[in-house]
Amino acid sequence: MSDLAPVLDRIDEQLPQSLERLNALLRIESISTDSAYGAACREAADWLVETLGGMGFDAERHDTPGHPMVVAQGGEKQGDSPHLLFYGHYDVQPVDPLELWLSPPFDPQVEQTPDGPVIRARGAADDKGQLMTFVEACRAYVDVHGALPTRLTLFFEGEEESSSPSLVPFLESHREALKADLALVCDTGMWDADTPAITTMLRGMVTAEVTVDAADIDLHSGMYGGPAANPIRVLSHAIAALHDAEGRVTLTGFYDGVSPLDPSLLAQWEALEHDAAEFLGAVGLAEPAGERGFSALEQIWSRPTLEINGVWGGYTGEGFKTVLPAQAHAKISCRLVGEQDPARIGRALTAHFQQAMPSDCTATVTVHRGAGATVMPVDSPMFEKARIALSDEWPKPAVFAGCGGSIPVVGHFQDVLAMDSLLVGFGLDDDAIHSPNEKYSLRSFQKGIRSWARILCALAD
Amino acid sequence: MSDLAPVLDRIDEQLPQSLERLNALLRIESISTDSAYGAACREAADWLVETLGGMGFDAERHDTPGHPMVVAQGGEKQGDSPHLLFYGHYDVQPVDPLELWLSPPFDPQVEQTPDGPVIRARGAADDKGQLMTFVEACRAYVDVHGALPTRLTLFFEGEEESSSPSLVPFLESHREALKADLALVCDTGMWDADTPAITTMLRGMVTAEVTVDAADIDLHSGMYGGPAANPIRVLSHAIAALHDAEGRVTLTGFYDGVSPLDPSLLAQWEALEHDAAEFLGAVGLAEPAGERGFSALEQIWSRPTLEINGVWGGYTGEGFKTVLPAQAHAKISCRLVGEQDPARIGRALTAHFQQAMPSDCTATVTVHRGAGATVMPVDSPMFEKARIALSDEWPKPAVFAGCGGSIPVVGHFQDVLAMDSLLVGFGLDDDAIHSPNEKYSLRSFQKGIRSWARILCALAD
Repeated sequence: MSDLAPVLDRIDEQLPQSLERLNALLRIESISTDSAYGAACREAADWLVETLGGMGFDAERHDTPGHPMVVAQGGEKQGDSPHLLFYGHYDVQPVDPLELWLSPPFDPQVEQTPDGPVIRARGAADDKGQLMTFVEACRAYVDVHGALPTRLTLFFEGEEESSSPSLVPFLESHREALKADLALVCDTGMWDADTPAITTMLRGMVTAEVTVDAADIDLHSGMYGGPAANPIRVLSHAIAALHDAEGRVTLTGFYDGVSPLDPSLLAQWEALEHDAAEFLGAVGLAEPAGERGFSALEQIWSRPTLEINGVWGGYTGEGFKTVLPAQAHAKISCRLVGEQDPARIGRALTAHFQQAMPSDCTATVTVHRGAGATVMPVDSPMFEKARIALSDEWPKPAVFAGCGGSIPVVGHFQDVLAMDSLLVGFGLDDDAIHSPNEKYSLRSFQKGIRSWARILCALAD
Repeated sequence: MSDLAPVLDRIDEQLPQSLERLNALLRIESISTDSAYGAACREAADWLVETLGGMGFDAERHDTPGHPMVVAQGGEKQGDSPHLLFYGHYDVQPVDPLELWLSPPFDPQVEQTPDGPVIRARGAADDKGQLMTFVEACRAYVDVHGALPTRLTLFFEGEEESSSPSLVPFLESHREALKADLALVCDTGMWDADTPAITTMLRGMVTAEVTVDAADIDLHSGMYGGPAANPIRVLSHAIAALHDAEGRVTLTGFYDGVSPLDPSLLAQWEALEHDAAEFLGAVGLAEPAGERGFSALEQIWSRPTLEINGVWGGYTGEGFKTVLPAQAHAKISCRLVGEQDPARIGRALTAHFQQAMPSDCTATVTVHRGAGATVMPVDSPMFEKARIALSDEWPKPAVFAGCGGSIPVVGHFQDVLAMDSLLVGFGLDDDAIHSPNEKYSLRSFQKGIRSWARILCALAD
């Protein structure tokens, strides 16, 4: 730890310069989903190449059919020190509705708020501010010690906000350059403003679309109402049968691969004292509605779900049309945990709907795509080192958290490169990512840089 | 019956002239729903006034906030002979898609088909051809005998295809002019090409729209999937609970006022040998799906239904959005029979959805409008006279038929004028009303005129 203290001092001292560099990146309008911003995405990639090159990295822009990748190699292994890959993304979400922004989205401002100063701009939290915490930690290390603490590969993509079409092909064709002992990913949040979190469980997902077909054409309910099968009724019955009275999913084999939560992890989550009433109250709800016997936090972080995300059929416009429709449709998604197999669950969904059909109705189920859940090895020494390093930086000890959603790159690192990910991020719940007036706390930025310096030091040790 | 034979001869003799007059009316583009055709609707009303005036009627155009009404008074009661009101509508449906018409919709043509000659034009069957069967029967009577057989009021509206907004106010403000002993309505069909029908049962209707509200905003299924209530699931459960396994509606009191069918009527319907497989097969279905224990024909003509006409909620576009929506919606309609009360059923529907809500969900049910079923007095002497008269004209005896849909004017005649309706029409299933290439069989036109002459003679007797 002897060489850490001057690095932390340097970080604090250089904060204005670090912020200037972040602002330069934030001014680049790198919206990946809109082809009008293709040049801006290239500019952001080039900015990273130049910045990292200036720090001594061997940095290169790799063009793809979409937006470029940036790969930078630097540092040397010290004895048994691990080779680490850092991942972030330089692209950002669109800014609509622009009229709701209180300052221009690509003109970063430091703003005083009751919770302290914040950096206000599109991408401030997702993910430019976060990725720069790592870059600035590297810079401080090099400034102080003349070298990085271990072998590092920095990897940035520019398509994270537009489904990452080039990511898997790029991983597959650059295994050698990208394979490391552990990936570090900075695209998640804190538990709360004082409690850092390492996200160790991500739910997987499988989605499907169901169409129930009855008559060849829409029918008039006066002429046919009674003897003609109504696909909306049939679909509603089949949907209603997907859950039992306890909120459990009734699909055959749905819970295969779902294990009870490790008691020590459960105890840690319980200690977080998650306030379900406050969590639900913020969106106008009051009572956890899901699977009986599990807290809201357990449900979101560790239990699988089956939800209907869309339903439609018949006449849905103004006024009334007494139609018996020919078809009815639903979009369904399952969030997966543990060892649940997306393909098997897709097959069980298909069987459920097909078996629920009365005569004269057929169900077509298109299972779109799937990814299993991700569980990180919390008992590995590197995770424990990172947890202690984070706990040293922040007022409260770091927690191992779950995440109800998915971060696809983490699964791809496992599948393509057989590499686990350490997910550490400094975002806060009110950062308004993907929304107008996105911000990143200046404290997150400063202590985020310091956190990565500590983690790098601990992992290299 | 002594004075009938020369009338029938006159009808056959004058068929070419009758057809010429029908064609003149068919050439008027009286599309009521499109304000661009307002002048054409007035022209059709004026044409009727002039035509009926020329036959000796005291005919008048009555302007309304919408399209004009035509009322024509003629004839004298002979002893106990009834005062009869004939109703028809001179307006027609729009003609889109125009490119599917094989000849111009307002240029009537007589066309030879494998089933005999047909008159091809918009309104040929609905309702200009049908209303002219009655007008031409009157003309033949006057031509032969110099007078109508009894007191007649002819009443034509020009808004039937656009929800008849002026109808009830007009009935209310013209009770004296319109009140008669029986209404004759020519806007229905034959049982088949050889079997005339008197429609004596019309189902009523009540419609409602349901909205289930959960969270204040759409939620991300990664962040909230599990503890957050999903209104699509809640709505699907509530819809699924509306019917039992026998296809019966479970709403409290739904079947109050539904009586078993009179055995003699049931026997008559069974004698029709309705082919459910053929009826359903025409639209791609095979098996009657509704209430167990009732034939398809019984279901449509004599049983109430509850159908979902539309359902929507969440993401329904291309691709996928893993949203938990804030709301889900359904449109529901019930077809009513017997003495079912639309208002009570609306209240039962509201209660059903409200009681089906778990915590965090509310149901708002808007009951739109309702009309009870209509049942005509089939055992009254006038219905029996009409049945015999029709049976004399056609190859097969006339049947008392039901109708799964509603003909609102019939309810209004009962409610406002306390007047029953004799529904006789000569349309065929393949007339393509409301569709391109509408037609009316020339046989329907000729034998329709003859049928009305017979009915008038029988009723006046």
